Amino acid sequence: MEKIKLNNIKITDSLFGSYTKQVADKILEYQWEVLNDRQKEAMPTYCIANFKIAAGEMEGERRGVVFQDTDLYKWLEAVAYCIDNGTGKAFERQADEIIELVGRAQEPDGYLNTYFTIMAPEKKWSNQVEGHELYTAGHLMEAATAYYEATGKDHLLNIARKNADLICRVFGQEEGQIHGYPGHQEVELGLIKLYKVTGDKRYLDCAYYFIDERGKEPSYFLGEIRQRGRYEFFPEFDNYDLSYSQAHMRPVKQKTAEGHAVRAMYMCSAMADLAGERQDKDLLEACKAIWNNVTQKRMYITGGVGSSGLLERFTVDYDLPNRTNYSETCASIGLMMFGQRMTAVTGDARYYDIVEKALYNTVLAGINIEGNRYFYVNPLEVVPEFCTKRTYMDHVKANRQKWFSVACCPTNVARTLASLGQYIYAREGNTLFIHQFISSEAKVALKDGSLHVKMGSKLLQNGVVRIGYENEGTKELRIKIRVPEYAKSVKMILDGDLIEPEKEAGYMIVGAGEAGKHELAVYFGIDAKWVAASDNVREDCGKVALVKGPLVYCLEEKENGRNLAGVFVEIHKPIEPKEPAEGLVGDIPVLEYEGSRLENKRIPSDGLYGEPGFELRETKLQAVPYCLWNNRGSGEMLVWQKVKF
Amino acid sequence: MEKIKLNNIKITDSLFGSYTKQVADKILEYQWEVLNDRQKEAMPTYCIANFKIAAGEMEGERRGVVFQDTDLYKWLEAVAYCIDNGTGKAFERQADEIIELVGRAQEPDGYLNTYFTIMAPEKKWSNQVEGHELYTAGHLMEAATAYYEATGKDHLLNIARKNADLICRVFGQEEGQIHGYPGHQEVELGLIKLYKVTGDKRYLDCAYYFIDERGKEPSYFLGEIRQRGRYEFFPEFDNYDLSYSQAHMRPVKQKTAEGHAVRAMYMCSAMADLAGERQDKDLLEACKAIWNNVTQKRMYITGGVGSSGLLERFTVDYDLPNRTNYSETCASIGLMMFGQRMTAVTGDARYYDIVEKALYNTVLAGINIEGNRYFYVNPLEVVPEFCTKRTYMDHVKANRQKWFSVACCPTNVARTLASLGQYIYAREGNTLFIHQFISSEAKVALKDGSLHVKMGSKLLQNGVVRIGYENEGTKELRIKIRVPEYAKSVKMILDGDLIEPEKEAGYMIVGAGEAGKHELAVYFGIDAKWVAASDNVREDCGKVALVKGPLVYCLEEKENGRNLAGVFVEIHKPIEPKEPAEGLVGDIPVLEYEGSRLENKRIPSDGLYGEPGFELRETKLQAVPYCLWNNRGSGEMLVWQKVKF
Repeated sequence: MEKIKLNNIKITDSLFGSYTKQVADKILEYQWEVLNDRQKEAMPTYCIANFKIAAGEMEGERRGVVFQDTDLYKWLEAVAYCIDNGTGKAFERQADEIIELVGRAQEPDGYLNTYFTIMAPEKKWSNQVEGHELYTAGHLMEAATAYYEATGKDHLLNIARKNADLICRVFGQEEGQIHGYPGHQEVELGLIKLYKVTGDKRYLDCAYYFIDERGKEPSYFLGEIRQRGRYEFFPEFDNYDLSYSQAHMRPVKQKTAEGHAVRAMYMCSAMADLAGERQDKDLLEACKAIWNNVTQKRMYITGGVGSSGLLERFTVDYDLPNRTNYSETCASIGLMMFGQRMTAVTGDARYYDIVEKALYNTVLAGINIEGNRYFYVNPLEVVPEFCTKRTYMDHVKANRQKWFSVACCPTNVARTLASLGQYIYAREGNTLFIHQFISSEAKVALKDGSLHVKMGSKLLQNGVVRIGYENEGTKELRIKIRVPEYAKSVKMILDGDLIEPEKEAGYMIVGAGEAGKHELAVYFGIDAKWVAASDNVREDCGKVALVKGPLVYCLEEKENGRNLAGVFVEIHKPIEPKEPAEGLVGDIPVLEYEGSRLENKRIPSDGLYGEPGFELRETKLQAVPYCLWNNRGSGEMLVWQKVKF
Repeated sequence: MEKIKLNNIKITDSLFGSYTKQVADKILEYQWEVLNDRQKEAMPTYCIANFKIAAGEMEGERRGVVFQDTDLYKWLEAVAYCIDNGTGKAFERQADEIIELVGRAQEPDGYLNTYFTIMAPEKKWSNQVEGHELYTAGHLMEAATAYYEATGKDHLLNIARKNADLICRVFGQEEGQIHGYPGHQEVELGLIKLYKVTGDKRYLDCAYYFIDERGKEPSYFLGEIRQRGRYEFFPEFDNYDLSYSQAHMRPVKQKTAEGHAVRAMYMCSAMADLAGERQDKDLLEACKAIWNNVTQKRMYITGGVGSSGLLERFTVDYDLPNRTNYSETCASIGLMMFGQRMTAVTGDARYYDIVEKALYNTVLAGINIEGNRYFYVNPLEVVPEFCTKRTYMDHVKANRQKWFSVACCPTNVARTLASLGQYIYAREGNTLFIHQFISSEAKVALKDGSLHVKMGSKLLQNGVVRIGYENEGTKELRIKIRVPEYAKSVKMILDGDLIEPEKEAGYMIVGAGEAGKHELAVYFGIDAKWVAASDNVREDCGKVALVKGPLVYCLEEKENGRNLAGVFVEIHKPIEPKEPAEGLVGDIPVLEYEGSRLENKRIPSDGLYGEPGFELRETKLQAVPYCLWNNRGSGEMLVWQKVKF
């Protein structure tokens, strides 16, 4: 299964279109100003300044986190996707100029990392546990391949190749090479993309080496830590837990999702790529085992992963607290990447149920409607006054932030939204795949012909997706449409006639060989419904969450007042769609239902404990999509609601 | 109101007697071995070794936390109380010997602190924020006064005085003195005790200076931090929050409990003492305001305080999570100390409702029945497998521990239990006060005569307390008996006759002037009952806790199986007392009641989210006292139970 070039896809969706439009109209510009320390309301990043210093064109100290360079690379990657999808032309000159600067910051042997070049040239490659050199290189490679594919310009590609060539020489199993691997996986993904663009198999081999070497005994990481004797960048790594970076055993043997969630998801994405490229069944089995562990035991209903506020990590099965969790935006992007690759490798559409869940909920929640505020952490329950620096909740913010000292998420969201088309469509031979029901238009060249598709999706409104397509007459063409897990029923009408398509591996297969324009209407039976969690999830016991299709809904203070913990719902009463709420986007109905509000009037306002004098007062509740919460001021928010039995 | 010497009080209680017996029989011995690094199962403390090195009698590096000396001082204080109460004679020789060592570790000018003497003599008194020198000195003074009062021996007292004299010279408002105050309050309490024992008013003045100087602007602490430029002992203090150590404003102006809970409670205890000694109304008003804030907005039903796992601190009103809280054992001891002093100063018994709550629940939970395992942190809900180092829950232990690297709690519990009599009785003029209903015997000299009291308490069984007393004929004698807030009704029978005692400030006043032996029976109407929390406590919304008298009950896995989060109770059904559980102490009935267990059978064992298929299955539940949990193996525990509406 291959991706489709973004210049063939146009997003027209009322929900996603609003965000993708912001990427080119506002987000790239906002982030550019941030990278240049000209965005007054955000904290300085020193990002571009660091490159200037490394290039010898500016005096000063290199500042920001050790992997600060990646903010620029992810911005460049997003710019590349926008140029490709036709919205980013305006940034091409800036991008070209900054690529020149990146080139000047590169050392003659290909080394490129502003931290080590400026601050510690003698320490290059010496601290894989903390140094993030390979992580940073991976983002350079991802940006470079994207920019080359979008523009055909190879300057950044050549910079990345020179850097990759150096890495392939420095790391490996041969004598004289460092037998290490990255402290934060990412370079594997970059190397695989470089391989795909250049055909140079050394990059694929090097990516495989990094996965294969990981977790072998004796541990490279523990040896490095012993030798250094102290932590240079992250004192919180003290008593380093190898599972934090998934280096506790060989990845091919791993069966559970451990450690830092972004590291884990990036590693799994690379493993899935390698399983496909190398036809490696063992690696694929490991991917499936970890996938099942994540999605069946360690994932929030919003597609959030990494439930611990401590070190942004996976914890243990069913430990899914709603107020103190991390559920980093980037981790859900990693989960999308992993699922996308699993479908590509296995041909099974069902991985996209999770990709969609992560995208529609946690990833979209990562950014505000205006495109200038971000969530790094995505809780499922918020009482703003409890999110203070004085508690263990310091990581949880009740409002999206302007920027972060570690700012992986904003640029990651931007590049994901800018490349959204590749999560909607894919192709293989004469088959066009439709994985997501996001209104859009695509012109897709297939093996023996081409299809022009116009998808008008009312998935979130009434479950109806209309797919107009035009074929110039190639008989072999077909469309495989994913059947989402939430569709209670599916009815398909092609040019006015009910059809019963063949089903396979989570797809409906529609022959699209007849010449001319056709209109395919897919009626997914989608109701708003209550969902419960496994009894093992103590936190959600006796509670339900409201979902409709891929969307998880939540209660906000705006419609429902304060103290949402006191809300009880009656799950057998009807849930009514109402007009979309003012101030939100996507034309998505608000869901209204009856519930009760618990009050204990026997405890006075200056009392803490007392006699139960519970009164349940009937009330109307209105829920909005979780992804849109905190777009209308600060307030309480709640996903899991108590059931009145 | 004065304390009564412990050698006049004998604890005979079935619950507390079991623990106080352990103090002399096992705990002091266990802790002595720990302090000497001979207790193989516990981690080495280096405590005695440090004193030997400081005395020049051993070579080596000084190890352990900067305030490690206090473990010995608190052990000595507990030994003193045990000698006083007649159970600790066997330790007197060891104590005398170790006091000699302490003396040899003291410097000629009175300075005494093994860390600074050995490791950094040039840095003495330079780091109040982190160094704990005054904190350590305070515990020396408390031990010294206790040992002097118990034995009449003044060696340790003289060591402490010499140290206190130095502190009175070094700190103060005069030119040439350091205008600082302790980073962790405690020295104030020690100085006040020294004053009471010696009558030397300099100590009282110095204690007042430390409280009065605190929080003045410009901040002494911020100045010290600026000057040092880095943290020497506690890197987690970075961006030091003055409220962490209650140094954000003058204590007399404070109205809320802020920061590290033990620091706050020790400070308030000293403030209450000073308010009494100096007749300082403003200080007393501040104490009352903070007391009200703690007990009406920031305290667990178990008397636990400091709800944040981050820095063991108070957070904000009503933020009382049950799984992630700190509720340090020492903080509840501090709350007991504060309440005891508030009653002594105001003459109002009602502060003892909270003292009793803290003692019977959190403090007693801090130690196991056998006296060799300790809780530092006291959660109200535990699922053992979720308490791992991989989560933000690392501080929460599912089982009591052998010892801690910061081991304030074990020795603090020991000294509190050893001096328990002083929380039961007090005297003033010709009045004997009975504050707690713990079976015991006391011979109390009053102003004009004496009373011999034998209290047989069945408070926890049937609410009946029998107080036999003997008076040799002094007419003026009287007994003031506290009326606990949980007593639904009170009936009092004196020598067979119903009497109606006068009531005042939370006491019932009984004339005890008639010569001879008398039998007073107090029938408190005490039922097991459900208690709810204020609606503002989001965490407890729709839940109830079971209490009976001062005891909070909990469900344990032992009687009730796993997944206690799935338990629902029906609060209008009867609660039946049953035989005490095997393996527990105190002869306290188990409470049995009907409830339901929620199961969702529609979600398969490998599923995480799915259709609600809730079934409520009726079940019998059995609750045991919270203070006794985790004495019969590891398992789930739950205080706040969901209500079936």
